[in-house]
Amino acid sequence: MTAEASRIGHEVAVENGAGSEVRKKARLAKAAARTLAKLSTQEKDAALLLMAEKLEAGAEAIVEANQKDLAYAKERGMSSALIDRLTLTVERVRQIAKGVREVVDLPDPVGETVRAYRRPNGLEIAQVRVPLGVVGIIYEARPNVTADAAALCLKSGNAALLRGSSDALHSNVAITERIQEALVEAGLPREAVQLIEDTDRAAAQEMMRLNGLIDVLIPRGGAGLIKAVVENATVPVIETGIGVCHIYVDADADFDKAEAIVINAKTRRCSVCNAVETLLVHEKIAAEFLPRIGEALKSAGVEIRACEKTLRWIPSAKPAVEEDWYAEYLDLVLAVKVVGSLDEAIDHIETYGSHHSDAIVTENYSAARRFTREVDSAAVYVNASTYFTDGNQFGFGAEIGISTQKLHARGPMGLPELTSTKYVILGDGHIRV
Amino acid sequence: MTAEASRIGHEVAVENGAGSEVRKKARLAKAAARTLAKLSTQEKDAALLLMAEKLEAGAEAIVEANQKDLAYAKERGMSSALIDRLTLTVERVRQIAKGVREVVDLPDPVGETVRAYRRPNGLEIAQVRVPLGVVGIIYEARPNVTADAAALCLKSGNAALLRGSSDALHSNVAITERIQEALVEAGLPREAVQLIEDTDRAAAQEMMRLNGLIDVLIPRGGAGLIKAVVENATVPVIETGIGVCHIYVDADADFDKAEAIVINAKTRRCSVCNAVETLLVHEKIAAEFLPRIGEALKSAGVEIRACEKTLRWIPSAKPAVEEDWYAEYLDLVLAVKVVGSLDEAIDHIETYGSHHSDAIVTENYSAARRFTREVDSAAVYVNASTYFTDGNQFGFGAEIGISTQKLHARGPMGLPELTSTKYVILGDGHIRV
Repeated sequence: MTAEASRIGHEVAVENGAGSEVRKKARLAKAAARTLAKLSTQEKDAALLLMAEKLEAGAEAIVEANQKDLAYAKERGMSSALIDRLTLTVERVRQIAKGVREVVDLPDPVGETVRAYRRPNGLEIAQVRVPLGVVGIIYEARPNVTADAAALCLKSGNAALLRGSSDALHSNVAITERIQEALVEAGLPREAVQLIEDTDRAAAQEMMRLNGLIDVLIPRGGAGLIKAVVENATVPVIETGIGVCHIYVDADADFDKAEAIVINAKTRRCSVCNAVETLLVHEKIAAEFLPRIGEALKSAGVEIRACEKTLRWIPSAKPAVEEDWYAEYLDLVLAVKVVGSLDEAIDHIETYGSHHSDAIVTENYSAARRFTREVDSAAVYVNASTYFTDGNQFGFGAEIGISTQKLHARGPMGLPELTSTKYVILGDGHIRV
Repeated sequence: MTAEASRIGHEVAVENGAGSEVRKKARLAKAAARTLAKLSTQEKDAALLLMAEKLEAGAEAIVEANQKDLAYAKERGMSSALIDRLTLTVERVRQIAKGVREVVDLPDPVGETVRAYRRPNGLEIAQVRVPLGVVGIIYEARPNVTADAAALCLKSGNAALLRGSSDALHSNVAITERIQEALVEAGLPREAVQLIEDTDRAAAQEMMRLNGLIDVLIPRGGAGLIKAVVENATVPVIETGIGVCHIYVDADADFDKAEAIVINAKTRRCSVCNAVETLLVHEKIAAEFLPRIGEALKSAGVEIRACEKTLRWIPSAKPAVEEDWYAEYLDLVLAVKVVGSLDEAIDHIETYGSHHSDAIVTENYSAARRFTREVDSAAVYVNASTYFTDGNQFGFGAEIGISTQKLHARGPMGLPELTSTKYVILGDGHIRV
């Protein structure tokens, strides 16, 4: 075999010479990652505290930069919901800084020995947590992601290569400047956190193919963004966030629990991925439960897309079409379907769902057991709202996203999910016979 | 958001109608995976034992099929090394069956509770191991991979979609037939293990983009194959096997250990990925160690590609060029370089290595500690041969490959690496406030 063949990563790294902003910053990130991997928890925490201070001290300048983004967004007629997500106030910047401080309190995953054992030949093998290296994050409007992601990457010893949207460019630049000031003052490489300022689609595309320089890519945003990354990236990706979540109200459900859970899972904040999108109801209880939940949903302002059987009990509902069973509405809309059995409920979820979060409401032991074993989703609930699929609710203290893929991490991802491991093997001159 | 956007996986699954062999078999695999995920360990083990029996009983038919592959390979002038890898004898088939039986003895990873805890609000959260689903394996000539991979996938509850090379097609078909006989006789879906018989490049390309039907793709073979998969796949990939491994002989090395380890790591079986390819020697000991190791390597028939400083002490060596530092020779060739310090050794490994397996030989505590912390490879050794990077040597009982990427799995992959997890959350009507 020639040298050529062994250079999969290297080739990519050197082609095109100095290259674009993306390539240049990715190289600097790679170099910074080596330094970051060696830092003690104390050094990282000191830098995080400085980051929080700099963000607070710079709050007004950040808000000023945000005004420019907002003016441009309004000019282009951005929706009020998106404008709200984009808006920073001094108070919101303080909240962002508070979030950075909370990362200080989280345990450092790096250096944790996952397992260690001695082999019969005396070799001692330990599997130890190490940073991933360079984490690329491609995200949409919300500028708070810039600081959140930077803090989580830093604590886990990773260099962050951030690529926000053009809508938030001024805000993201202002936040990144404060973060880099803190890094330099803490004696860390400035390139530990970098923002790609080129908001052209081509720059994102380039990030997706920088094998050897970017170790993992995490898209955060709408379905379109995630789809584009999954379809184009050759760098390993962690797919996040699409949630076509179900609640199945079983024949043996407690109706009070069922109503509370359905209303909570649909109306608490319907624009997020862990909100319920489809309600499945066992036909045995349809006559009793559907009119009741129909009323409750109506009072909560929820539009219903109903199957034929459901329409009998909620005649005011809109008839559902095939598309509704696939829909992630992210809105006050709920698809409702009557199913003949637990099997049909599970089949529906497996066929139409996104394997994010699905719940059964039941008092029946065997139904609960079958549902939790056979529904193949990141989070499977019995008698609880799907809204609990969240790093904070799971007790992780923070999350970088919710993985809906099966490789590496599944469900809410905290700091340990931002690490890899390596094997450290100690011998005394051991050779293999 | 429209239904369209939430169907990332689904769209891929339904386009093109019934489609090609690959798509058809992938769909069947997906359906089989749901059944496999529910099986008890006893059911899987019974099927594995039947598989072993069928392989043994069919040994002669398998060898006969293998003869056809061999005849064609010889006709095309395949190298004797590759022909050896392709050859099956009744004894080798028995070894394959024995390997399948050994998988019965391995613990079933599915259903293992990775962690479980109760939240302050009373919710009980458990993270439980589940199969990945459909595992695609694209591999080269060795037909034993067909049975090995099938057995490991079955034990871990995954459907296996196997795509071997055209060189081994008759052998692979014969082996797969025996396996499917066993599956059916055991009452399992025949589609739990399927071979893609279309050996066109296009079929492999299609596998690489079947997001939503294939959960993970593992390429096993040479650098060219792995590169093609990494560069073209949108399905999550586990990159395996490229090994540009180093041994660094430190200023404080024990020369006896150093010589034994270098000779073992180069000559035990030089065609595998955990063999050493580059030797780094501290300049302080170059005058003493290099002539000695030069003699030993020469006696072992190893060709040396030497840096300028090395040439002074091993004048018979061939001068190295830049390419040699990247080379995965997989042959009795070793690149040798003198370095001025531990830092230079680590820098060299980080620059030219493939992050597979790297070793330091030293009696110095601090050098050992720095090397194990700062070298970013799947396996980092002190005073031991790089040949130990292997599932059996690590005590895993079997391996599906050696991951050189950081996501999901790193280093030798056993059965737990063929699983994902899901969260099972038990509540009593919990809603999120």
